[in-house]
This record gives sequence, structure tokens and C-alpha cells, in this order.
Amino acid sequence: MTMLDQEVQRAGEALEVPVVDSPPHEQPVGWRHRHLLDVDVLSWPDIELVMRTTDSMREVLARPIAKVPALRGRNVTILFYEASTRTRVSFEVAAKNLSADVVNIAAATSSVTKGESLVDTVRTVEALGAQTLVMRHAVSGAPYLAAETFSGSVINGGDGWHAHPTQALLDLYTLRSRFEGGSLAGRKVAILGDVLHSRVARSNLWTLTAAGADVWLCGPATLLRGFEAWARRGAAAGRRFHVTTSIDDALRDADAVMALRIQRERMESGLLPSLREYAARYGLTRQRLAAARPDALVLHPGPMNEGIEIAPDVAAGSQSLIEEQVRNGVAVRMALLYLVAGVRPA
Amino acid sequence: MTMLDQEVQRAGEALEVPVVDSPPHEQPVGWRHRHLLDVDVLSWPDIELVMRTTDSMREVLARPIAKVPALRGRNVTILFYEASTRTRVSFEVAAKNLSADVVNIAAATSSVTKGESLVDTVRTVEALGAQTLVMRHAVSGAPYLAAETFSGSVINGGDGWHAHPTQALLDLYTLRSRFEGGSLAGRKVAILGDVLHSRVARSNLWTLTAAGADVWLCGPATLLRGFEAWARRGAAAGRRFHVTTSIDDALRDADAVMALRIQRERMESGLLPSLREYAARYGLTRQRLAAARPDALVLHPGPMNEGIEIAPDVAAGSQSLIEEQVRNGVAVRMALLYLVAGVRPA
Amino acid sequence: MTMLDQEVQRAGEALEVPVVDSPPHEQPVGWRHRHLLDVDVLSWPDIELVMRTTDSMREVLARPIAKVPALRGRNVTILFYEASTRTRVSFEVAAKNLSADVVNIAAATSSVTKGESLVDTVRTVEALGAQTLVMRHAVSGAPYLAAETFSGSVINGGDGWHAHPTQALLDLYTLRSRFEGGSLAGRKVAILGDVLHSRVARSNLWTLTAAGADVWLCGPATLLRGFEAWARRGAAAGRRFHVTTSIDDALRDADAVMALRIQRERMESGLLPSLREYAARYGLTRQRLAAARPDALVLHPGPMNEGIEIAPDVAAGSQSLIEEQVRNGVAVRMALLYLVAGVRPA
Repeated sequence: MTMLDQEVQRAGEALEVPVVDSPPHEQPVGWRHRHLLDVDVLSWPDIELVMRTTDSMREVLARPIAKVPALRGRNVTILFYEASTRTRVSFEVAAKNLSADVVNIAAATSSVTKGESLVDTVRTVEALGAQTLVMRHAVSGAPYLAAETFSGSVINGGDGWHAHPTQALLDLYTLRSRFEGGSLAGRKVAILGDVLHSRVARSNLWTLTAAGADVWLCGPATLLRGFEAWARRGAAAGRRFHVTTSIDDALRDADAVMALRIQRERMESGLLPSLREYAARYGLTRQRLAAARPDALVLHPGPMNEGIEIAPDVAAGSQSLIEEQVRNGVAVRMALLYLVAGVRPA
Repeated sequence: MTMLDQEVQRAGEALEVPVVDSPPHEQPVGWRHRHLLDVDVLSWPDIELVMRTTDSMREVLARPIAKVPALRGRNVTILFYEASTRTRVSFEVAAKNLSADVVNIAAATSSVTKGESLVDTVRTVEALGAQTLVMRHAVSGAPYLAAETFSGSVINGGDGWHAHPTQALLDLYTLRSRFEGGSLAGRKVAILGDVLHSRVARSNLWTLTAAGADVWLCGPATLLRGFEAWARRGAAAGRRFHVTTSIDDALRDADAVMALRIQRERMESGLLPSLREYAARYGLTRQRLAAARPDALVLHPGPMNEGIEIAPDVAAGSQSLIEEQVRNGVAVRMALLYLVAGVRPA
Repeated sequence: MTMLDQEVQRAGEALEVPVVDSPPHEQPVGWRHRHLLDVDVLSWPDIELVMRTTDSMREVLARPIAKVPALRGRNVTILFYEASTRTRVSFEVAAKNLSADVVNIAAATSSVTKGESLVDTVRTVEALGAQTLVMRHAVSGAPYLAAETFSGSVINGGDGWHAHPTQALLDLYTLRSRFEGGSLAGRKVAILGDVLHSRVARSNLWTLTAAGADVWLCGPATLLRGFEAWARRGAAAGRRFHVTTSIDDALRDADAVMALRIQRERMESGLLPSLREYAARYGLTRQRLAAARPDALVLHPGPMNEGIEIAPDVAAGSQSLIEEQVRNGVAVRMALLYLVAGVRPA
């Protein structure tokens, strides 16, 4: 069943926004996803529910004591096989704001993995008390494997090149909050850089096209490989998007521009000649941004290589929503931790 | 005073199980051990009290909000000189379920030890507020040294080859829960593998023989060194056990089999020819397990080297209690954190 | 405005000690420093307020449940660019005793810094929810840069050779608690060792001279460089102190002696011939301590190199306040976390 089918099926079906001060299982909430592995299984009403629950979480964050007892006693285990401070802390703060107990496991440097299969680790973590498992892994699909075993909820915190659903949802939330009427319909959004290796681009492509945006993927040909064919086939539930190596085409009259992080490893693998050349040809500078609409919004998933994929004055400029992305990230993750906690195994 | 003496002394003396929702010092509990350094100082009534307090903790874990305020405000510091994720997380979750505040110190990678003696570190940790100190150390006896200095409670989370008391107690709890009438009297329990370097085997030997089990230690001769002489002398308070290099003898009609983790370092030190040979001769496979009783229980302290000391289908099979060991580990550690917190320095 | 000017301006102005069980913003407290970057901006009434608030925190620490709800829901993020267990844990315990939520970021080993400027990191940490930022950095002045960006409170947990304000305040508190009448006026305090590279010495110089102590800095000439000229100019708000290479002069009739930690790196850079020679010439031994007053107090900021800058029997002797420094450190940091939390951005 494609996402469009789901939309038809659930047309007009408005999901009620929960009262986030109380535990999710104490109220009827229309959310039915036990896990959040990627955005491609979310219907439009699902996405709307995440957005409106995030609104409620932002209200919580604006209180003098930014804390609700909703997940008191729930064990949220953050199992990260790749180093990541900002995503880890974002989930940790989100969980603590909901009064959950947080266990951090940095599997990269931990003994959890010595000779042990992923499935055994997930079973062990569950037996240790984990009820929600937030997982980041270098291998695409690893959280899906975890979800097959784990009887609580798995939230994908980024898997290989595949998906980063919470990032896509926070980007959507951030853009909607700035566009009149909260709609992305017909808005041109350019995503610049290493699209090929980017789970951020992949998940965003889905939610942005679902929201009706006109998405342009742009970068050196070596870093767009395969996307053109995918675009022609209509990748995301039949919705189309553009692929181009021309940054001029991508930025012209854009309503929003998202610069992706360039990984230094790409140079070593020969996909890019040098960081300097990348910066010269694809870096988001003030001059280039001038080709977009005057009030075009600037996003970056962080951490930034300033002076490479984005110029410092653009990153810190008045059009930049980069800090707001981080801020909204906590609220979106609160919403998702809350929603999945209300779904029991079938 | 041996354990048997203690049993005589305290004969019939039933210790009252505490109401674990309330702080331990608010009620009369017959527990008198400020520290838990090894199981060899525990009388049989003590062990029974741990088992029944663990029953209460399992009831807590089964509640919708698996949390009691019993240790609110108590500082539990987890000072681990050896990397260990599962034991560390088990203690952390146990302490948080009792509403204690947890401080993690990974001393292996920490500056706590730069040029500082263990005694100075323990004094510092106490001055920083630690009230219960959970300690793992590569040197046998290190927690004893800590206990001489520390005025709160020390719990040994594993010291060198010497002892791992919480593991032995959770193994005992797990076995009792599966044997009819909760008794191990006359039950044959085989412990397979690197007995020589195993603190798990040493502590289990004590509690299992105390519970009346017929214990068989089995492995290559190089990894049993000294145990035969010890067995002849009657190691554990005069109680006997068997030592054999024959896995057939060890498994024949066994009621339970515990496979120990093989450390790769043992190969390097020449005590084992190769992992492949170890797996061929001592690995717990389905065929070998068939020699035991049909419903024989399988245990492993984790993390497993699947395909070496234990076959994947045995580890995941219906006789395996491996996940239940992890689950019971949290409850046993809750019980122990609770019990020692009720004992004040003399 | 120098500190003496401030003292004149605020003469007789007694700051009311807060009731530390309640949040700071609910009561009128005369504290006006949003950040604590160094002690040099503190007036004498400010310092007195820290001391008396610390008294209140010690009362909290003496309670059966050493916890107040004062900072419930406040996010205290501990961002350490240098490894440090004891200072990190001290802040963590202090924050938890006030019911704050603590986020630890070990930036030394973290991805937070990959290609990111300090200012970007601070902006990100704030967007992630940090309200108080405790920061340690190898570069002198880094917390000042952070404070320019951060809209909550920055507490300096040690920056390069520059400052360690919480250490100086806990040292002052510890000394006052042992001198009759709580006054350091006219008391001779010797600081021994690597003064040149010591942020502890620099911050202590300020508070100790402000308290009227007669401060003697002592060490090898290579490790005192520049301090003599500074002493002649009257470094700390016009107050004088002594600089000497003679340990006999420094210790003679001293009321208190503080031994500094010798960093092994100093040998490599050629500033010290060898640790053995340093120990022989400047180590604080029982014989040398005999030159001080009979009840002279001994301090060390930790971690100690026992047998080098301080002899084990001195460190563990009856005159040593080293553990009490650690204990008071938690109380002083509770006081400071509490006080800065009551100040809103202008």
C-alpha cells in the first residue's frame, strides 16, 4: 500500500491531538505505529498528528518548568553504534522532559558488541528494561532488524545512507512554521550536496514531496548517482522531484535551501576532487543565495563545515533556521517518543 | 566462621522480607551485610532473604510504572575499571527503578586514576557523595580494599578472577524459579569452559553447593588447574563438587548447564590451541545437550561468543534462560542495592 | 571598576541568604552575576553570599535525603573539552541534588566538535535545551567566548592556565571553616608548585588576597615566571603577595599550605629536570611541614601525584583537608548553580 493509497483510505480522518501532560495510554490517540523506522509508512494524517503534537511539546518547552510526567518510569535506551552528540543529546533531553529514565549506550566504544550479534544485543537491552530503543547504526536497515526482535518501540536515529526520519520530521516542522498558512504546497526546496550518501536527503525527499513541495536535489554528478533514474520513475509514492548538477537551476527562486554536510571521507574515496573545489562549485554563499527568493529559508542538519558546504555569514544570517532546527528537534522527538509509547505490541 | 557454622547459629531464623516501596531504614530487616563483596559470607537465611526480596522487586518491575521511591536521594556511584555494558546498565537501571541518583565513572578511560591510588579514588568518590559504590576491577580483591576505606556500601560488580556475587545470585534465582518447589537439592549443574579465569564460576560454585546442587566443573585441563585439588579438600564450607575434562560426564543427566564465556586472550597465552578446537571439543551444541535431561536448563552469563562456547540454536532455544538471567539480574540488583542501603556503618 | 571599588560602593550592603529549598527566582536574592567566569568580578559581599549559601547547601547535604527541588526541570549541560572526572562528577552531583536534569558532553571524545566552531557548538547546546552551561576548555578565555553567545548561565569549570573559580571558592570555604572566626585576615597561605601553569593558583590568588591572607607563591624559578613582576605591580586589585623559590621561606610559620599538581608534560617541555628532583626540592613532606605552624592546614586540588608534590603521610595526615575540599566542592557548586539560575539575561 503506497502512501497515496493510505491518504485516500484515511481521507478526512483527523487524528485527535493528545493532551501531552498525561500518559499516552490513558487517552484515545489515533497513532498506530509502534516503531518509527522511516517516514515512508506515515500517512498524511499521521504526519499532521506529529506536527500538532510537536506544537503541544513546544508549549511544554515554553513553560517555566519544561517537564511533563507523561512517560514517568519508562525506560528509553539510546543505543548508538555511530558517534553523534547532537542527535543523542536531543533524544536524551526529549526523553527527560517527558520524565522518562534514559540509559545511554555508546556501542561504538562499548563491550556490548564484543562478539555479539545485533539481535542478541537487542534482546539483552530489552531484558535490561528498555521499553523504547533509539538506535543509530552505520548499516542501512539495522533498526528494522532490531524491530523484528524488540517488543517495545524502536525509533531510528539514523541508519547508514538509508533514513533519518526524526530529522525529516523536524525539517518539515521548521519549514511549515515559517511558510504562510503552514503549507509547503508549490514551494521550491533545494537540497544541496552529497545526496548519494545522505539519509537526511532520502527521508526529507519523502516528507517534502508528500507535503507538496517542489524538491530539487543538486550536487556533483558523482554524488547524485542513481537519483535521476529514481526521479524519472517517480520515487516517492509516485510523486516527482528534480535532479540537477546546476546550482543555478536549483537555487533560482527557491523558497528554501538545505545544505548537506560533506563528509571528508568522500574525498578519499575519489568521489570529490577536493573540499576547496566543492566549496567553490557548490558551497552555499551569500552571492548564490541571492538567486533564491529574497526571504528564502536556509537549513542544515549539522554539524556544519563552515566555509565548505555553507559560508559562515549564511549560516549565521537572518534567513538561517539552523538553530531553530535543533530547537524543534527536541520538540519533534518528544512528540515521537510520546506517540510510540502509546502503542502496544499486537 | 564458616557458612555452615552461620547456618547452625541462625537455624530457623527466618528473615522478614521488606516492603520494598519504602526506604529500608524505616523497617526492621534482618539483613546485616553493609557490603556485598562475595557470596561466601552469606548464610542460607541471607540468601533466602535476597531471593524473596527479588520476588518483591519482580512485582515492582511488572507494574505499569516500574519504579518505587525506596532509595530517593541516595547516590549510587558505578565505578568500573573494566569495560562492561551489560553489568553497568543492569546496576544503573536497578538503581533508577529505586529512584536513586546514579553517577557513572568509566575509570578505564577516565582521569580519576591518573597517578592516584585506589584508596585515594575511593575517598574522593565518597567525598563527592557516593553512598553505594558499585565497583568492577581487573584486580582480585580490589573491592575489599575499597570497603576498608569507604563508609557507605560497596557492591562487587566483578573483581579479577575472584568473585561476581550478583551474577551468582541471579543465576541461583533463575534456576530456583524453574525447578519444582524452588529447590536445587540434588540437581546436577554443569559449568563448562574457562573455569580457571572465571569469577562467575567461583561465585556460583559457592551458592550452588550451598543450595545443595551437585556441581560439575568441566573444561580443558589447562583451564581447570587447581580446582581438582580444591574439590578434594572440599572448597566451599566443606561441600564437595566434581571436576572433569570429560564433557560427556559433565552433561550426562544434567538438570542445568552453564556455558562460560571464552576470552580470546586465552589463546594468546597458550592455554588453548584455538577457538575452533575449543568449539569442537567443549562447545555446547544441540547434540551434546541431548545427553542432559530432556528439559535441562541452559544458562550463559553473557556476552556470548555464539558458535564457540555455545551454538546459536542452543542459545536461542526453548531450554535457554539467557534472557531471563538478564531480566532477573535487574531484580536481584534492585534487591541488593535495597538491602545494603539499610545497613549503617558500625 | 576594581574589586576594591566595588567593595566601597557596596559597603555594608549585606546580601540576603536565599532559602535554598525553593527556586531562586521566587525570592529576592542580591546576586547579580549571570555567569561565573572567574572570581575577579566578585565583590566581597558576593563572596560572602556564596559562602553563606554554601552553608545552607551543607545543611541540605546533611539531611537523610540530600535533595531539594530548587532547580527542578532546569537543564544543566556539562561540556568538558578536557578530561576531568572529579570536577565533572562534582558538578553532576551538585546539579542532581538540586533536582536539575544533567546532560554530560565529553567534547574531547565527541563528534560535537567535528569541524564546528566553539560558538556554533554553544549555540547548538543552547538550542538543545541547556540553561546552565558548565564548561571546561584547554584554551584560556574559551568560557568568555561562550558567555557572549549563550543566553543562559556559563560556569567556568577551568579554562587553560587562566581560571578555576569554583575551585578557589571551595578552597576559601574550606579554609574559613577551619580558621577561628572564619577569617583569613593575616593568615599566611603558601601555594607550592607549578604556579605558572595553574588556573587553581591564579583564581586562589585573587580570593585569598581579597580575604586578607598573606599569600606566598613558591616553586622552581621556571614555574614562577612573570609572577614576581606581577606581584610588584600589585596584581589582585592592588593587593600584594609574595613570590619565592625558597620553600623554607614559604613554609615558615604558614597557617595553610596548598600543594599543586605537577603535570608530567612539564618535564617534556624542559621546564623541570625530573620528577625525582622536583620531589626532592619542593615535595611537601612531613619534615618540611614541620616548619609551618603546628596545626597548619594542608590542601591539594587533586588528583594527587603522591610521593611527588605531596608525601602520602601528609596527604592522609590529620592536618590534611583534601577530602573536605572535595566534599565542600559539591556544596559550593550547588550554591553557584543555584545563585546563577536566579539571574535572567538583561
